Amino acid sequence: MAITSDVRGAIRAANDTFQARFAARDASGVAALYTDQAWVMPPGGEVVKGTGAIRDFWQSVIDAGITAARLDSSDVEAFGDTAVEVGTYRLFAGDNEADHGKYIVEWKMRAGGDWRLHRDIWNTSVSR
Amino acid sequence: MAITSDVRGAIRAANDTFQARFAARDASGVAALYTDQAWVMPPGGEVVKGTGAIRDFWQSVIDAGITAARLDSSDVEAFGDTAVEVGTYRLFAGDNEADHGKYIVEWKMRAGGDWRLHRDIWNTSVSR
Repeated sequence: MAITSDVRGAIRAANDTFQARFAARDASGVAALYTDQAWVMPPGGEVVKGTGAIRDFWQSVIDAGITAARLDSSDVEAFGDTAVEVGTYRLFAGDNEADHGKYIVEWKMRAGGDWRLHRDIWNTSVSR
Repeated sequence: MAITSDVRGAIRAANDTFQARFAARDASGVAALYTDQAWVMPPGGEVVKGTGAIRDFWQSVIDAGITAARLDSSDVEAFGDTAVEVGTYRLFAGDNEADHGKYIVEWKMRAGGDWRLHRDIWNTSVSR
C-alpha cells in the first residue's frame, strides 16, 4: 500500500506538471511527459505515436482554443514500473468548460524514478 | 514472456466469447465477462458500474441496432493477476460498419484462472 501511495503522489505531481505546461501553451513540454514509445489515443482520430507526433497533437488542441486541462485521478494501481490510472478530465476554453470526460492512462517509471504517460485514452461524458 | 503469452491467449479467448455473446444478443452473458466491480466507460455518457448496469448498457447498444462487435488485441501486458490490453474494435449494423476505434481494457484474473474485464474504455477513430 505504501508503494501504491507513493506512485499515486508521483502521478498526481506529473498531472500537475501536465496542467501547468498545457496552460503555458508548452506542447513540447507536455509531450516530454510521455515515454519515447507512447501512444496517445484521441477520440475522432487515429493513434498518435511518438514524441514529435504527440507534441503536434497537443499543439493542435491548444491551437483549437483549449486553454486549460484539468486532470483528476480517481484510482491508481501500481505494478512495479507500471501503473494504471483511471480519472476524469475537464477542458476549458477561457472561462467556459469545452468538454469533460474520463480517461485511462498506463504509466511507466523511467530512469531516475520519473513516471511517464505510456498509453493515454479518453472520451467525453457529454451526450451529444 | 511465457506468462504474458498465456495471458494473451486467455484474453483473446475471452474476447472471442464477448463477440459470440454479443452476436447472440446475450447482454447478460457479455456482462458476466466483467468483474463484479467493473467500470465500463463509454463515450457520450457517465461511467457504468457493476454487473446489472453493464448488462443494461450493452442491451441498449444491441437495441440500438449494433449486431456485432469485433475486438482485435494489439498488445497485452501482464502483471500477476492484472493485465493491460490495447486493441482496436469494429462495430457492425448488419453488413455495415457502424463505427471503428480503439480501446484499453484492464483485466483481472479471478477464481479458476478466469480473466475478466475490470476497466473498459474506448473511443471512435472516425472523424465526425
